[in-house]
Amino acid sequence: MSTSTALLTDHYELTMLDSALRDGTAHRPCTFEVFTRRLPNGRRYGVAGGIGRVLDAIENFTFGEEELAQLAEHDVVGESTLAWLRDYRFQGQIDGYPEGELFFPGSPLLTVRGTFAEAVVLETLVLSILNHDSAIAAAAARMVSAANGRRIIEMGSRRTHEESAVSAARIAYLAGFTGTSNLEAGRRYGIPTTGTAAHAFTLLHDSEREAFESQVASLGTGTTLLVDTYDITRGIELAVEVAGPELGAVRIDSGDVGVLARQAREQLDALGALNTRIVVSGDLDEYAIAALRAEPVDGYGVGTSLVTGSGAPTAEMVYKLVEVEGRPVAKRSSHKESRGGRKAAVRRYKETGTAVEEVVFQVAPGASEPVLGPHDRFLQIPLIRDGKRVADLPTLEDNRQRLRHALVTLPWEGLTLSKGEPAIPTVFHTA
Amino acid sequence: MSTSTALLTDHYELTMLDSALRDGTAHRPCTFEVFTRRLPNGRRYGVAGGIGRVLDAIENFTFGEEELAQLAEHDVVGESTLAWLRDYRFQGQIDGYPEGELFFPGSPLLTVRGTFAEAVVLETLVLSILNHDSAIAAAAARMVSAANGRRIIEMGSRRTHEESAVSAARIAYLAGFTGTSNLEAGRRYGIPTTGTAAHAFTLLHDSEREAFESQVASLGTGTTLLVDTYDITRGIELAVEVAGPELGAVRIDSGDVGVLARQAREQLDALGALNTRIVVSGDLDEYAIAALRAEPVDGYGVGTSLVTGSGAPTAEMVYKLVEVEGRPVAKRSSHKESRGGRKAAVRRYKETGTAVEEVVFQVAPGASEPVLGPHDRFLQIPLIRDGKRVADLPTLEDNRQRLRHALVTLPWEGLTLSKGEPAIPTVFHTA
Repeated sequence: MSTSTALLTDHYELTMLDSALRDGTAHRPCTFEVFTRRLPNGRRYGVAGGIGRVLDAIENFTFGEEELAQLAEHDVVGESTLAWLRDYRFQGQIDGYPEGELFFPGSPLLTVRGTFAEAVVLETLVLSILNHDSAIAAAAARMVSAANGRRIIEMGSRRTHEESAVSAARIAYLAGFTGTSNLEAGRRYGIPTTGTAAHAFTLLHDSEREAFESQVASLGTGTTLLVDTYDITRGIELAVEVAGPELGAVRIDSGDVGVLARQAREQLDALGALNTRIVVSGDLDEYAIAALRAEPVDGYGVGTSLVTGSGAPTAEMVYKLVEVEGRPVAKRSSHKESRGGRKAAVRRYKETGTAVEEVVFQVAPGASEPVLGPHDRFLQIPLIRDGKRVADLPTLEDNRQRLRHALVTLPWEGLTLSKGEPAIPTVFHTA
Repeated sequence: MSTSTALLTDHYELTMLDSALRDGTAHRPCTFEVFTRRLPNGRRYGVAGGIGRVLDAIENFTFGEEELAQLAEHDVVGESTLAWLRDYRFQGQIDGYPEGELFFPGSPLLTVRGTFAEAVVLETLVLSILNHDSAIAAAAARMVSAANGRRIIEMGSRRTHEESAVSAARIAYLAGFTGTSNLEAGRRYGIPTTGTAAHAFTLLHDSEREAFESQVASLGTGTTLLVDTYDITRGIELAVEVAGPELGAVRIDSGDVGVLARQAREQLDALGALNTRIVVSGDLDEYAIAALRAEPVDGYGVGTSLVTGSGAPTAEMVYKLVEVEGRPVAKRSSHKESRGGRKAAVRRYKETGTAVEEVVFQVAPGASEPVLGPHDRFLQIPLIRDGKRVADLPTLEDNRQRLRHALVTLPWEGLTLSKGEPAIPTVFHTA
C-alpha cells in the first residue's frame, strides 16, 4: 500500500497545475493563506488543530509510480506535468499558528509561500486536515472548559469515520481530555487509552454479579463498573459487594445522569465507598457537562458530540491565493471577498494578561508592522523552511499547555458557551 | 506501515475480551445486531452505506507483531489474550442490508453471529464505518432526489478529514452523484473524477482573459470556466469570446446563484452559446438544490453539506448483543431499552410497488416468520459465511441502481425534505 498522501487532492488542483505549467505562470512566486471568515455557531474562539498532521502529510506528499499511473490512465494531466510531479517535493516556506493557539475570524492560520505550482497542489489536503482537526479542537476545548477540572475521556470513535476517530482522539488530548478509548490513537500519538466494559459484558454473563466478579478479577478493585444494565440501585449495591469499598468508580450511561449521580453518591457513601468515583456518559456535550457542574460527578465520557464538532463538524477554513510575484491579489465579485497580500498577526494583551485584540497586518517591503506593547506577541511561528520541517517544533504536550494557558487569557465572556461575538475583535492594521 | 485495522478499536473491547477469556464466557455463541433507534433530524428514510467497507475492514482485522507489541507494552490485555489475538480471524456469520438499501428505525442492518470473543472486538470498527458512511448516504440521496435528474458533483474533500473525504466520495457516487473531485476515490473505487479550475487560477494570471485562454488551450472548449472571480457579466462575455459558443459550461460559485443563473442563461443565449451549461456551487445543500429547481441550472457542485451529512454527521447506529447461547438478552434500565433476540426483516409492498411497512421478526427455532405477500421481500443478504466473504456480492454499480429503484417505491411523503415521520412504519412481528 502506498503511503503517499498526494491523491488526497481535488482533481482541479492538478488541471490548474497542468495549464499553468503549459503557459509558464506555474513558477510565479505566490503566497497562499489559510483563514476563516467567521467562527461557526456564534462560538467565541477557534483552536488551531492539525498543524502537526499537516507537516506529516506534506512530507508524504509525493507522486510515486502508483499515483502517476492513476493520473496518466485517467488523463488528468499531460506527459510533461507527470514528469514534473515525479520530482515534486514542496521546497517553499510555511509559517503558521502552532497547535493549541486560539484564532479568530481573519487570523492568518497558515501562510504557504512557494511557486504557484508547488503551493496550489497542497490546498485540498491542508484544508482537510485543518478543517477537521480545528473543528474538533474548538468543541473539545469548550467541553474541557465546562468540565472545570474534572476528568474527561474521549470515547466517540464509533460515531465517526475510523480514521477521523484517531485524529479526533489526538485533538481531544491536545484540548485537555485525560485520555481516549481509541487504541490506534494510543499507538500513533502516545496518548493514554482507557476502558473497562460495556453492557454487552454484563448481558453475556448469567448474572450481573458474575460479570462484576469477572471484571474485578481481571482489572482489580480500582476498575470502573458499569452499573446501569438492569437496576442502577441494585447495580451499585452489587458493585460494592463484589469489589468492596475500594471500588474505583461506577459508570452511569443512561437516564437523567444528574439525578442518578446524586442518588449514586448517597448510596456509595452509605455503603462506605467514600472514594468510589462516579463517571457519567451518554450523549454528553459541553452544555450537558456544564449543567452537571453542581452534581457529584467525578468524570465524563464524551462520544458523539466531540467527534462531530458539537454542531460544527468543519471549521470553514479556506486556502486563498493572496499574493503573486509580490503583488496582492483578491477575488472581487459578490460577498465572498478576501483581503489580498501576505499577512501575519499579533495578539495584544493588557498588563493583567487579558487578551485585547488580534491585530492582522501586511507583510511586505515597506509595509509597517504594528508596534509591540510589552505583553503583545507574534502568533505565527516558522514551520517549514525550504521544504524542511523546522527543528524543535513544539510537541503535543507543549501545545496542550499552550491551549490551557491561552484560554485563561480570554476576557470572561470568551469562556461562555452561549452564542455571541468572538472573544476579542480582529483588527486589520494599516500603515 | 501496518495495514491492520485491529487497533481502530475501543480499549474496552479488549478488556472485555480479556475478562471473558479468563472466566470462560468468551466462547459462548452470540448474536450482535446493528440498528438505529431513530432517523436523525426527522428524516424520512436511512440509506445503508459502508457495508462494502466493513467487509474489507474485517478482512484486515488481524493482530500482527506491531499491534500485539502495543497491547503488551500498555498492559491492555494479558499474555493468554495476546496469544488468542495472534490467531484471531473472524470465523462467524454476517448478514445485512446491502448498500443502497433503505432502512428505518429498528431495521436489523447487520447481524453478526459468532462467539462473544470474535464478535465483540469488531464493534467499534463496524460502527465507525456504518455510522459515517450511512450518514453521508442519507444526505447524498436527499440531494440527488432534490436535483431531480440534473448532474451533481461531490467536491467536499477539503471540508472533512482527508480519509473521510475518500469514503464520502464513494458514498456520494453510490447515491447517484455523477462524480467527485477526489482523486484518491477515483483510484481506490474507480469513481469518475472531475475538475477544472479555482479562483486562484484566474488570480495567478495577469488577466482573466489569459487565464481562460490557458485553460481552454489545455482542456479544450468543452471545459467549464469559472466566471465569478471579478465581474460575472464580463466573465461570461470573456468566456464565450475565448472559447466560442461551443464552450462546455460556466461555473458560478458565489452570490444569489438562482438570480445569477437566470442572468447567465439569458446572456449565454444572446451570445449564441445555447448549449453552454450552467453549473452552480457554493454552500449548497438539499434545500438550496430544491429551491433551484425552477432555475436554468444544469449541474450542481456540492461540498460541505455532503461530507458533513447535512446536519446529521453520524447515523446513530448501535451494535447490541441480542442473543447469548440462543437466549434473547436486552438491557433493561431506563429509556435506552432494546429488543432481544436475533432478528431479520421483510419489506411489504402494495401491488403498485409502493412500500407499505418494514416488518422485523425474530429468527429462532419455533418463532414464526411473517407470511410473504407476492411483492414482499426479505431485506438481509448473507455477507460472510464461516469468516469468508460470500461470492458475487452486489457491486457498487448494482447498489447504485438498488438505491435509485428503492427511492421510487417510497410513498410520496417519503421523498419530501421536510421533517416528519419515517416514510413507512416499522412493525415488530410477533408469532
